[in-house]
Order: sequence, then C-alpha cells, then structure tokens
Amino acid sequence: MVLQAARSLGVDIDSVCGGRGICGRCQVTQAVGEFAKHGVRSRPENLSEFSAVEQEYCSTQPMDEGMRLSCSTQVLGDVVIDVPSASQLHRQVVRKEAEAHDIQLNPVVRLHFVEVQQPDMHDPSGDLRRLEDALEFEWRLTDLKCDVLVLHRLQQALREGDWKVTVAVHGGNQIIAVWPGFREHTYGIAIDVGSTTIAAHLCNLSTGEVVAASGIMNPQIRFGEDLMSRVSYLMMNPGGEKEMTQAVRVAINQLAADVAFQVGIDPTDILEATFVGNPIMHHLLLGISPIELGGAPFALASDHAITIWAVEIDFAIHRNARIYVLPCIAGHVGADTAGVVLAERPDLSDEITLLVDVGTNAEIVLGNRKRLLACSSPTGPAFEGAQISCGQRAAPGAIERVRIDASTLEPRFKVIGCELWSDDPGFVEAIGATGVTGICGSGIIEVLAELYLAGVIRHDGVINGELAARCARIQSDGRTFAYELWPAPEGGSAIRVTQNDVRAIQLGKAALYAGVRLLMERMGIDKVDKIRLAGAFGSHIDVKYAMVLGMIPDCALEQVSSAGNAAGTGARIALLDQRARPTIESLVRRIEKIETAVEPRFQEFFVEAMAIPHLTAPYERLREAVTLPERQPVNTESPGRGRRGARREAARVQAAS
Amino acid sequence: MVLQAARSLGVDIDSVCGGRGICGRCQVTQAVGEFAKHGVRSRPENLSEFSAVEQEYCSTQPMDEGMRLSCSTQVLGDVVIDVPSASQLHRQVVRKEAEAHDIQLNPVVRLHFVEVQQPDMHDPSGDLRRLEDALEFEWRLTDLKCDVLVLHRLQQALREGDWKVTVAVHGGNQIIAVWPGFREHTYGIAIDVGSTTIAAHLCNLSTGEVVAASGIMNPQIRFGEDLMSRVSYLMMNPGGEKEMTQAVRVAINQLAADVAFQVGIDPTDILEATFVGNPIMHHLLLGISPIELGGAPFALASDHAITIWAVEIDFAIHRNARIYVLPCIAGHVGADTAGVVLAERPDLSDEITLLVDVGTNAEIVLGNRKRLLACSSPTGPAFEGAQISCGQRAAPGAIERVRIDASTLEPRFKVIGCELWSDDPGFVEAIGATGVTGICGSGIIEVLAELYLAGVIRHDGVINGELAARCARIQSDGRTFAYELWPAPEGGSAIRVTQNDVRAIQLGKAALYAGVRLLMERMGIDKVDKIRLAGAFGSHIDVKYAMVLGMIPDCALEQVSSAGNAAGTGARIALLDQRARPTIESLVRRIEKIETAVEPRFQEFFVEAMAIPHLTAPYERLREAVTLPERQPVNTESPGRGRRGARREAARVQAAS
Repeated sequence: MVLQAARSLGVDIDSVCGGRGICGRCQVTQAVGEFAKHGVRSRPENLSEFSAVEQEYCSTQPMDEGMRLSCSTQVLGDVVIDVPSASQLHRQVVRKEAEAHDIQLNPVVRLHFVEVQQPDMHDPSGDLRRLEDALEFEWRLTDLKCDVLVLHRLQQALREGDWKVTVAVHGGNQIIAVWPGFREHTYGIAIDVGSTTIAAHLCNLSTGEVVAASGIMNPQIRFGEDLMSRVSYLMMNPGGEKEMTQAVRVAINQLAADVAFQVGIDPTDILEATFVGNPIMHHLLLGISPIELGGAPFALASDHAITIWAVEIDFAIHRNARIYVLPCIAGHVGADTAGVVLAERPDLSDEITLLVDVGTNAEIVLGNRKRLLACSSPTGPAFEGAQISCGQRAAPGAIERVRIDASTLEPRFKVIGCELWSDDPGFVEAIGATGVTGICGSGIIEVLAELYLAGVIRHDGVINGELAARCARIQSDGRTFAYELWPAPEGGSAIRVTQNDVRAIQLGKAALYAGVRLLMERMGIDKVDKIRLAGAFGSHIDVKYAMVLGMIPDCALEQVSSAGNAAGTGARIALLDQRARPTIESLVRRIEKIETAVEPRFQEFFVEAMAIPHLTAPYERLREAVTLPERQPVNTESPGRGRRGARREAARVQAAS
Repeated sequence: MVLQAARSLGVDIDSVCGGRGICGRCQVTQAVGEFAKHGVRSRPENLSEFSAVEQEYCSTQPMDEGMRLSCSTQVLGDVVIDVPSASQLHRQVVRKEAEAHDIQLNPVVRLHFVEVQQPDMHDPSGDLRRLEDALEFEWRLTDLKCDVLVLHRLQQALREGDWKVTVAVHGGNQIIAVWPGFREHTYGIAIDVGSTTIAAHLCNLSTGEVVAASGIMNPQIRFGEDLMSRVSYLMMNPGGEKEMTQAVRVAINQLAADVAFQVGIDPTDILEATFVGNPIMHHLLLGISPIELGGAPFALASDHAITIWAVEIDFAIHRNARIYVLPCIAGHVGADTAGVVLAERPDLSDEITLLVDVGTNAEIVLGNRKRLLACSSPTGPAFEGAQISCGQRAAPGAIERVRIDASTLEPRFKVIGCELWSDDPGFVEAIGATGVTGICGSGIIEVLAELYLAGVIRHDGVINGELAARCARIQSDGRTFAYELWPAPEGGSAIRVTQNDVRAIQLGKAALYAGVRLLMERMGIDKVDKIRLAGAFGSHIDVKYAMVLGMIPDCALEQVSSAGNAAGTGARIALLDQRARPTIESLVRRIEKIETAVEPRFQEFFVEAMAIPHLTAPYERLREAVTLPERQPVNTESPGRGRRGARREAARVQAAS
C-alpha cells in the first residue's frame, strides 16, 4: 500500500483508523508523467484501481477528484506521490501574525482506532491488556498506563463497539479515554488568564485549527483592579485566596462551556488544556497563595511547568483531561511571558530581539540565540488608563488617536466606535449620545507624544504654562497646567491631560525604559535589532509615539511591531505541539532573571529615563511617519535632560557609526 | 562519622533527619576488644566522646546504655561497630506465622528531613526547586515530581519550619507531603476486602510494626450473602454497582478511622494503602462493573496492578496518599490470591506447594520455583456453613469440634465460647442461655469426617440407615436419614446432619479436589510436598479431617498447615516492601491460569472425587492424630468408590515406593 511504502521511506502520512479506510486522513494524489529528476515514469496504471474501500469512503465523505486513500491504494510500479500538507502527520499550522513562525502540529493527545481481541476462557487476560496489545500491534505504543476511570467504561465500550474502539492516548503512554467505534476529532483549549480578561481558544487537535474563541472579564476584578490590590486584599483577608481561586475557576469553566457551545460539542469533548498567566494568576489558578509574591524576595511556590489533571483545578472538561501550565520565569515574570517567548522564539535568531509585554508590570525579555535575559519593571497601571484623570479602558467613546497642530496647538482626535476625526464635519452627530468619554491607554501615549512634539510638554515633562497666553486649551489649576482636549458637555466634565497625568506616564515609561536599559547593559549592547510588543497595549499603540516618548529604545521603525496576544499564542503552541513543552521549560531555565528591585543601576536608569527625549537623528527619521505638522524649535539644553540625554546621544552616535 | 563510614562500606544505616542527631534512627554500639578475625583492636578511645548532640538527643528520647548516634560519633581509630537490626535501613519485619518468610522493610513512602535554601532576589528560583535541590544534595533524590496540593502548603511549611521541613517522598520520585520541622513517623494501611469481612492492618512505615487492626462486615452483604448473588443483584438492578461501590468505600473509610483512632492519629496521617480482594470486590472497590465476571468468558477489566490516588476511590486518608491494588490473576482468581502468593512465595522453593484459599470459590495455586499454576473451583458456600441445614457462621454456640465414638456412635463436641466438651459435667450450665445454635464450617468438616470414620457415612456419602436400629441418633425423615448431634431444646430444633448436608459438602470437596487434581495433572505430578490453607476456613479446620474427607490431596500431615490470613499478609508485604510490587506483578504474569469451566478433565475429576476416601495407608498414619476411638471394619469394595479410588491407591503406592 502507498501508506506503508511512504512510511518505510520516512514520510509520515497521518492516520487515525490505522489503515482501514475510515478516517480519510491519509489522502494523497499521484503525480503522473516522466520525472527525470527521480528517473521515474509515474503512470496512472502503476497504482491499483479505485478500491471498494475508497468507494465506500467516498459515498459518505467528501473527497476531491484525483485523491486516493493511501491505505487502500497499492503500488504496482514506479509512482510519484504528492502528500498534501493536510495529510502529513506533523503538518504546519499557519499563524496569522506576520513574522511569526508556524506551529508544528504534534498534539500530546492523539486518537487511535484499534480492533481488540475478544476475551477467551483459555487466555484470561483482562480487557485492558488486550487493548494494550492492540495499541502495541497497530500503533507501536508500549509501556502504556491507563486512568482508572477508563477502566470504568472500557468493558462497555469494547462490547458496544464490537471490539473496535477509538482510544485517546496522552503523551504516547497514558490511555485517557476510550469510545466505542471510530471517532475522528478531539479538542484542546488554550487559556490566557490575564489580570483583566481571560481568553480561551478552542482548537481541533486533529487539524490544529482554532474553531472557537471567547474572552471574559476576570471575575477577580471585584477583589481589586490590579494585581497588587488583589494581593493586598489577601493580606487583609487571610484565606481569601480560596474565594479568588474559585472565582477564576468558575470563569474558565464558563469559557470552556462557551467555546464548546459555539461548535456544538460538549465541554467533556475537550481532552487537553494549556494555561498561561502572570505569577499571581498562575498561583491563584492552581490554588496556591500568591502572598509571597506580594513582597520581597518575591518567591514563587514553583518555577516548574505543571502537568496535572484538569479536575485538580476543578476544570470540568473531560474527566481524564490533563492541563499543562507553562512555567513561571521569576516572581514577577510569569507563565504569560514564557508564552510570549514560546510564540516569538527569540532564541532562534542571531538578531537581538526585545520582547515587551506591558501591563501593570512590564515584563521584558531581551536576547538572541546565545543569551536571554528577563526582568519585570513596575510601570504602574497608567498605560492601561488607570491613575490618569480622564483615563478609561478601550471602549466606545474613548479617545484613541490624537494629532496636535504645532502652530495652533489645536487637537484633532478619533474616538473608538467612530470613523470620523473630531474636526470632521458631523463628528458630534456621529458620536451621538455616547460623547467623548475619556482617553484609553494608546490615546494617552499619542496625546503626550503629540503635546511633546508641539512643544506643549517640555523635556522634563512640565506642561509649559507660558503657552497659556496664546492657546486657551492650556489651562491653569493654580499650581500646574492642564491641556484640554474636549470641552465639558452640559453637566459633564472636560477631557483634559493634567500635569499629574504626564507624571504618571513619565513614571511608567521611565520604569519600562530603565528595565530595558538594565538588560541591555547586562548584555553589553546599546541597540536592539527588533522590538515586539505583546499584549493588548502593544496591539493598539502606534509604536512611533512610544518611541517619541522614549518608552522603548531606538530601533529601526520597521523592526518594531505588535506581537498580538503572544502569551495566548504560546499557550496554543504548547497545546498543539507537545515538543514545545520541553522546549519552553529548558528555555525558561536558560533565561537569566534580573530582579530590578535589587539593581542599583535600575534606579539610575529610571531617574535618567524620566525626561522625554529631544529631537535627534533617530527622531528625524520618525518625522515623516508621524506626519508632523510644522513644529517649534526645541531647546536642547532643557534642564530636565540631565545625564541621560548625553548618554543616549553618545549611544546613538556609536550605533550610527 | 560512623554513619558516613558505614555507608561508604555499603552498610545502610537508617536515618530520617539526615545526620542531624534528631531522629535517633542511626544508633549503633561499639564492640570493644581484640578482633583477630578482622585484625583489629577496637578500643573505646577509638570513637569520639559522647557529643553534645548525643546528650541533647538523650535528654528528650530514651537511649540504651552503650548506644551511640552514628551521625555524631567520629571514628578515631580501628573500631568494630554493631548495627542493631532496628537501625538497619532495610531491616526485617518478623512475621508471627510459622514457616513464613520475614518481610523486608522498604516502604514506598519515606520521610526525609531537609534544610532548604532561603529565597534570594538574586536567584529567583521557586520554593519547590530549592526543596528539590536540598533533597538531591542531602538524599541524592533526583527527577522529583510534586503533587500540586503540596504546592498549596509548601510556602507556609518552609517558613513555619524556619526552612527546615520533613518531606514524604513516594517511590523515590514523587513529593506527596511536606511538614514544617522534623517528623518521625508515617503510617500505611493494608486492607483485605473480603466478600464477608473487610480487614485492615495499620502499620508504622518507619518500623514495620502493625500498630492497629480492625475488621468489619462487608456492608455489601445486604445485596447478597455470596458474590454471585451480588452479581445477580447487579444484573437485575442496572447501575446498582454504584451503590455497592459506595458501600464498600464507606466501609474502608470507617476502618481507616477506626485504626487511626486506636493509635491516636488522624486518618490523614496515613500516607499509603494497599488492597487485596477477589475479582468482584476488586472491581467494585475500583468502581468497575463486575457484571462481566458473572458469566463466561469471565473477562477482567484489567489484570494489572493499579496505583492511583486514594481519593480516586474516595478513600479519605492523606489527600496525596496513593493506593496500590494487587493484580488479579484471572476472572475467578483475584488479587486476594495474588496476596496469598506474595505471602507464601511458592516460587522460592523447589518443593511443590499447594496453596488453597477456600471461600465460595476455592482459589488454588500449585507449583514451585519452576512453574506455577492457578485455578478457581466452584466449591459453593457449604464450607462457610451456608446451604447446610444447621450451618452458621463461627460465633458463640456453634459446634466447632466433634468426636464420634465408633462403637456407640455417640457424639461429643465443643461449641465456640465454651471450654467444656458436651459430655463433660456442667456443659449445659456452661453454655447457658446461648445453647447449641448450629454448626460452623470447621465443625461440619469434623462431624462428616468423624461420621465417616465411625461408619455412619459410607464411601458414597450415604448415611447408613441400617444403623438406625442400634443408635437413636440416626433418624429417618422417610426417604433419607439424618444424624442428630444435639436434641431439640424446648420450642427449638435439633442440631442434625442431613443427607443433603453431606451432599453439599461432598459437592464442595469434590470441586476443590478436582481443581487441585487438574493442576496436579497439568503439572505432571501425583503428590505435593506442602499444603498451605489460607483464609479463615483454613485457620479453623483441623487439616487431618480435611484429609480424611479427601478435600486435599495426600501429603505428609506435618506439611499441611494454615497460612492464616495470607491474602491480608500479602497486602501488608506490598505495603512495607515496595520491591514486593514488581515481584508479585511478574509472578502473576508467570502463573499459568487454568479455567476449570472449559477443562473436560475437571468434570471427570469432579465426579470421581464425590466419594469419601476409604481407609488406606495414609489414613492409618492419621489414626493417632485424630485419637480414633475403636472403629468398625470398613468395606473397601464400597459401590461409591469407583474408578477414582483405584487411581488414588495407585498414586499412593507410587508415592510410598
């Protein structure tokens, strides 16, 4: 048969039914003609005729013209066979994200259809032993173990299926489920447990496809918006972690039910799950108190990857399903970052890649094939719109894009849910009753960068009150100044950027930059080749503005991009490719963990990074990209610049030379 | 130190505290003097002085004169050291039973005291990793895994214990519990799930001692007295196995609570459990339907040993405790028989051993070092006193010993709960209100054997009605005769042996003997070297009478003995010595399983064995042992003897020659 011939040549063609013409996974086509390269003439008659088995399969399943079931097609002479990617055992799952490597499909749970010997009084072996014999004979699986719950159903499944059953085997050695007869599909779920939202992707483990996705708010928000306030809650309420654990477990069960419902399966059809999350969510999900993570030395309970039964975290998918939780890297660098690393694989490249996942803490990974470093930097929640006077989550009415005319200092902006700019005719009508409600995280970055480019904010971050004289938008509150983006509606309040808002962002961006600089210094470099911004924040901000503000180090603009939900992608990779698990585990062990809190240099970098960069060569390169209006000349001797400005200029000269 | 010196010489001295002078397990004595054999003069001054650590230990714990803690005693010159058995790592646990080999103490769960590195911001490894490092450094344990529930408590235990903790490790590679500070003892429970009673032994895993024992009636009795009636119940009541499973699980929890209470520990201090039971109890305990075992081909769900969490069978001992269930051998030969094999180890001897466990089925194992055979024979419940007109369980009032005067045909007997024989003065007063209530299993064997020896029962099992003329105890019911042991009290009924009773015992003993003969024939032998009778029945019967009736094959009387509760002992061995587990697993695989139901020879042997043996040479040897009264001459040409008598005589001649 073509199937056996291919396998003996080392070409792995997929199959669930073991060559019985049931599953249709092994379809191939013949390339007909003269193949000089192979010295072969591949004639149609060199394959056996379309068989009865193929006709039977065709009558129930769609099968493209020219396709053959390799398990029922005989090789009668020289042939050239094309194995389409869908029929390859370890086929690639193409990822949508640009620049991302594909996922190799090699799930930890596989289905195997077998025919089991019937019991015989002369050979009183147990049903399980005969099942194992069949799995060894047909699939070369040895040293199998079996969950006791499988034993509960095994006898009935064998007899119902007339001694033909489909078996789910985990990791090639653990029998976790058995069904009478033939079963084709099995499912897995990858879950990213974020502080704010929990997102799930349901995948068909046979095809690698994402068949459903869903996300919900993390119900723990009722214990505190950000992570540290949740840990504080626990310190105040001993034993409260039980409640928080239960809350997140209820949420993942809702998610599983939701994605299963979307595709018309039962949650118990889900046979495997993978999880990523920051250290605190990681601990709470597993029922471990995160209190130790709330104070120095920030000790994790475990930095291992964890494989346990889903039921051990009360996750009501298949009763024998296992879950795989990616390893945390350090007390502030979680399994979510491990997911980002697995999705981005900076270790596969010679280029120095900087991975940044911005949240209440920024988790930062820097390195390449030779060396990987990681740290976490306390950026605070400003980038998420918290602690900003008019900050809000990304939702309709939130300002997300801003431009400020450098001569008039007048703003124009766009809000989420409306295609028009604020100075387009009909804008007010278009936004309707929602109005302009606040500024989201990406909007704050833009408005600050634009205010800086327009000269409203100085290098030291101070809103220049002198400009109040020529622009009514710059308004004094007595001691400091604010910039009004949108006037107060009747009975409402104006949308403005206050001096405190600028300070909050300055603190955040200084922390982020200082973390990056610390890793760069440790690595002995002044420049990175590539920057990937992970997470929701990274997806929404315009990276040019992040660079204008000095959030991220200099890098060719085209080398800065969003990595999307890279943590979630990492969970999906670990779900679809079992070999990714030892890979990320050893990568995480290899990563050098830097604790910013005990690095004196971090403090220095932090202080230096408080200023907002001035206009130098790299900025000039950005000029076109941000379609700058005419701008004010800027004083390069601004008092806020300090030591850092000089250092950065020196670095740039070096990089340019 | 003496401890290290001993270990480097390959002498394993026990220790839990890792040489800190806390546990006192490593005590040794010095043998002082000239040891020509070793060429050594062992002087007192060749060991360091009694140390402060030893004084400290002494002040809190009893320590015998002359004992030293080998972990704090330095070797200063030539010494000869005695390691008492209590200080040996793999010491022997002496078994009470005669002829039984000792158990080597090597439990699967061991305690290890370690000191763990504190977390450090410069090395952000998890608590678990540092614990593993300590276990590797101090105890050379590698590739450790850890239950997720240990992680729930790990952080607190480390901090409470000031970074010193005691860890329970299962199988040398799985961390299952952690406690702050030093902990010395851990417990295991061995459970024999019988059809009628469930018995538990609680063992201290550090010493191997049985510290408590308890037994209760199997609550499944309400679903049917014997196993087959329970399976019938299930066939009539689909889904009823859930109820039956729950009943047995409730019972084992009661037992665990009871034995724990006896020694003042909590059931959660029990870290390991082992189980034996017949196939039906085995399946029900594990939640597997036993219905397949109720009909041909009697297929087991699994014939593997099973290691799972206790919680998987709702067994509320330590949350991470594992249970080990010994393997079943065949559909009618259960894990209880595997326990008997493990307790008796017939495979260690050249002698041919016959192991018999009599219950509703007799489970029979025959063989030696070279070959082992097993089968089950349907003896019916007669040996347990069921289906016998005056049969009852062994309880006060039940006749257990019987003698019949061969000339007068008058009986004398003893009942359970009374020291006097029935013809002793004051017997009636001694038994008091209880009276004589029935005949227990061992009593039935004796009365039948004595009736046979007295000539009341003929070779063919017929009660000789002709004797009614000279003895009023032989009474007719019209068609057949009965023998009255005890007259009816006022308003009660007489205790008698009816013709039907004799038939029931004949059927049972014929089945047992036929099973044994089948195995002997398969093995090509006519004689066994040793017979061990396991179980309650084996403990109570007088084996001489069993031989008189022809229940068991000929064998030197001194080579026939009770093995006590050998199945339970097997469970205890598997509990105390982890190496016994692979041993019994491979032994069970090696055993040749014979299904009596499909062996035509079994039917032949069965018919032949219905007769009761006549007086031949082997019986003469028994004569003294049973203190025979003068007896009637017996007709050796009795019509019931048939082919079998001749065969057995031939065999005996051969054996004697």
